[in-house]
Amino acid sequence: MNYDIIVIGSGPGGYVAAIRASQLGFKTAIIEKENLGGICLNWGCIPTKALLKSAHVFNYLKHTEDYGLNKIENPGFDFTKVVQRSRGVATKMSGGISFLMKKNKIDVIMGTAKVQKGKKVSVTDKDGKATEYSAEHIIIATGARSRELPNLPQDGKKVIGYRQALALPELPKSMIVVGSGAIGVEFADFYNSMGTKVTVVEFMPNIVPVEDEEVSKHLEKSLKKSGIDIMTNASVESVDTSGAGVKANVKTANGNVTLEADILLSAVGIAANVEGQGFEEIGIQVEKGRVLVNEWYETSVPGYYAIGDILPTQALAHVASAEGITCVEKIKGLHVEKIDYGNIPGCTYCHPEVASVGLTEKQAKEKGYEVKVGKFPLSASGKATANGNTDGFVKVIFDAKYGEWLGCHMIGEGVTDMIAEAVVARKLETTGHEIIKSIHPHPTVSEAIMEAAAAAYGEVIHI
Amino acid sequence: MNYDIIVIGSGPGGYVAAIRASQLGFKTAIIEKENLGGICLNWGCIPTKALLKSAHVFNYLKHTEDYGLNKIENPGFDFTKVVQRSRGVATKMSGGISFLMKKNKIDVIMGTAKVQKGKKVSVTDKDGKATEYSAEHIIIATGARSRELPNLPQDGKKVIGYRQALALPELPKSMIVVGSGAIGVEFADFYNSMGTKVTVVEFMPNIVPVEDEEVSKHLEKSLKKSGIDIMTNASVESVDTSGAGVKANVKTANGNVTLEADILLSAVGIAANVEGQGFEEIGIQVEKGRVLVNEWYETSVPGYYAIGDILPTQALAHVASAEGITCVEKIKGLHVEKIDYGNIPGCTYCHPEVASVGLTEKQAKEKGYEVKVGKFPLSASGKATANGNTDGFVKVIFDAKYGEWLGCHMIGEGVTDMIAEAVVARKLETTGHEIIKSIHPHPTVSEAIMEAAAAAYGEVIHI
Repeated sequence: MNYDIIVIGSGPGGYVAAIRASQLGFKTAIIEKENLGGICLNWGCIPTKALLKSAHVFNYLKHTEDYGLNKIENPGFDFTKVVQRSRGVATKMSGGISFLMKKNKIDVIMGTAKVQKGKKVSVTDKDGKATEYSAEHIIIATGARSRELPNLPQDGKKVIGYRQALALPELPKSMIVVGSGAIGVEFADFYNSMGTKVTVVEFMPNIVPVEDEEVSKHLEKSLKKSGIDIMTNASVESVDTSGAGVKANVKTANGNVTLEADILLSAVGIAANVEGQGFEEIGIQVEKGRVLVNEWYETSVPGYYAIGDILPTQALAHVASAEGITCVEKIKGLHVEKIDYGNIPGCTYCHPEVASVGLTEKQAKEKGYEVKVGKFPLSASGKATANGNTDGFVKVIFDAKYGEWLGCHMIGEGVTDMIAEAVVARKLETTGHEIIKSIHPHPTVSEAIMEAAAAAYGEVIHI
Repeated sequence: MNYDIIVIGSGPGGYVAAIRASQLGFKTAIIEKENLGGICLNWGCIPTKALLKSAHVFNYLKHTEDYGLNKIENPGFDFTKVVQRSRGVATKMSGGISFLMKKNKIDVIMGTAKVQKGKKVSVTDKDGKATEYSAEHIIIATGARSRELPNLPQDGKKVIGYRQALALPELPKSMIVVGSGAIGVEFADFYNSMGTKVTVVEFMPNIVPVEDEEVSKHLEKSLKKSGIDIMTNASVESVDTSGAGVKANVKTANGNVTLEADILLSAVGIAANVEGQGFEEIGIQVEKGRVLVNEWYETSVPGYYAIGDILPTQALAHVASAEGITCVEKIKGLHVEKIDYGNIPGCTYCHPEVASVGLTEKQAKEKGYEVKVGKFPLSASGKATANGNTDGFVKVIFDAKYGEWLGCHMIGEGVTDMIAEAVVARKLETTGHEIIKSIHPHPTVSEAIMEAAAAAYGEVIHI
């Protein structure tokens, strides 16, 4: 069978690319070896948010009296049902992608793909039968998986990755979470909220190490207050799974420590799926485990493109989707702008949530900017006070010379839905004063962005 | 005592003006007859949000099983404590204003003000003692109160305004809410959530009549589903309070109906406080119950300014604050931009929340625009699905010719914190495509804005 475009992998890079391709009139097929929607939808972004929502509601049950409501004696849950709800959300969303494929007349081919010379793809189905397809353009979007460290091999039972962490058969009494990026702290927060004793082990000096240092420090304090143990500047040297649980030998500044827990979750990043797909055979260049592409996502072999987590760009669902759309629109010959990788928001959905875009204060200074920094604590926000949750702040960084909005860093309830304002404003090349003079509705938490900008210019009202 | 600037009224117009004045080096005093923070903070925006938060958490208690949590048998509350919490939030915020006044070295003068000729203000304190103050500039920010209709006189017990509705001694079994603007539907939603049988009576064909018709219709459906009775095209002709409760004679298209309830809340708008403050005596022009000002908030008498709800402009806290800042910055001689009254967001904090800015579809068409309309339902949002709350949508309206973002209308959980994106983008003169190409983080509800914009241009991915 011959197509205009074949997309390999149906995650948020692949399925979005396929839909946009179909919209633009391309005869399109998508190949998926497991579930439509890929990791994000089935084993990542979406089901974790469902678990965290259950935890969020459960946390309310522990604090009903704060709102004038009767105390709930022994609030409880059925862990299986919590997991089932999360799986149900994933299944529903995956069904939605199936619907979108049909609606957009995209052929869904189930099986494992291998690219071949001459713009061909061989797909092996679950019975081992191989079929060959060809296309003018082949877009590789095969994503990534949980990275395994040599001294932290995953057995899927006691030493697990995010997949297993999403569907444990029962609530562990204790858990070691290695790595404190978004995945690590989200699971740490979820399990801690449900009653698991959680210890986070982070190699770097700060948790959520890509975030602005003030955000990292604040989150560490908040998570500790909620009962999570956090060890920074610490690394797991070895794991012993011979007993009932897990014993982790952790190297710290003060010598080695042994941590014991039911389960250890390894959340030390991801590894791109570059193996066994024929890349080397046809000459697609791979470097440091990632596929190399130009600014329009063309690999080193004409007609073969790559997008998403398989690239060295940020491994985020929204980046993959944008790359997919850009790649397809460029193939179509539309007038397309390059993606601005400096304006990609990042979100972490623990409580308090973290959201940011642009440079951290440290990065801005390292780049030689003279900066104006403004910070507004949510304790001074009327809406946050009415909500009963004032933990967090908004921090903004402007270039002192031209007023460019260099970075926005937020921690607090709801900030993951607030960061889009900064993304759009930065895309539109705002200055600080334009943010100050944009009338934000009262009372909202979003006012904190306007106030933080005003703070940077000595015009803040509420602090 | 002589000041550079005297501000009369310490609501979100007055206290913000005073702080900005102090920042700009003016010797400033503020006069308040009741509580620092005015209606918004003490009897409006803030305490209502506190009540609604209690209702929000209480609603979770009724639906814990949806999240895999154990059923709560007979969730309950102490109504007095719910009200106390709300009052406590107001008291705390008012204390915050007191702190800000001190920090900014603003003299707080407690008493009732009356303007006098020669840029003087006479203030009568609670003991009846009058003191005279003078200033180079007098800013009137005395706000508004609940409007009383002749056939709906408020007795403060059975026929009440928003003030009494914020602090009822006990939960009424039944309530008639007359008027379905923001105040009306917020109280209707709160009392209904807590167990009161609520009937809303609206004179216009749609509830929240200033909103886009699709939003109004959707909200009506959602509120009805939550148990609220809604009568549109209906008006209260008379009220009988002689019995145990209230009997309201309501005129409808199908003839008159008698509604009975414990309490009737009149939420038919506000009346500006223009009386008894010496306006007429010194020649300040008042028309249709509002003070007339020019674009820099100067009244007809030099040296006297007016801002906030006392003006014919939108009666919203954030408008009052912006007017206060603009007024003071202009007095200072700064280069100030006029407020764009076409870019003022409006929020209603019922569940689902409503937020909007700019023209409705109907208004845009009436103004002669050829429009591109995009709509994205939250049922197609992964984050909303994970949250377990997909009720609502985002609707955007662009000018087909130049791509100008004419209006944004949203209904759903969290939209009041999402509308700022549209406000800022519109201020920065965005086009539809710039919104589509701003990479919104996944998974967030804010993606729905990007998707709605894409829908307007035939590029939507997830529907």
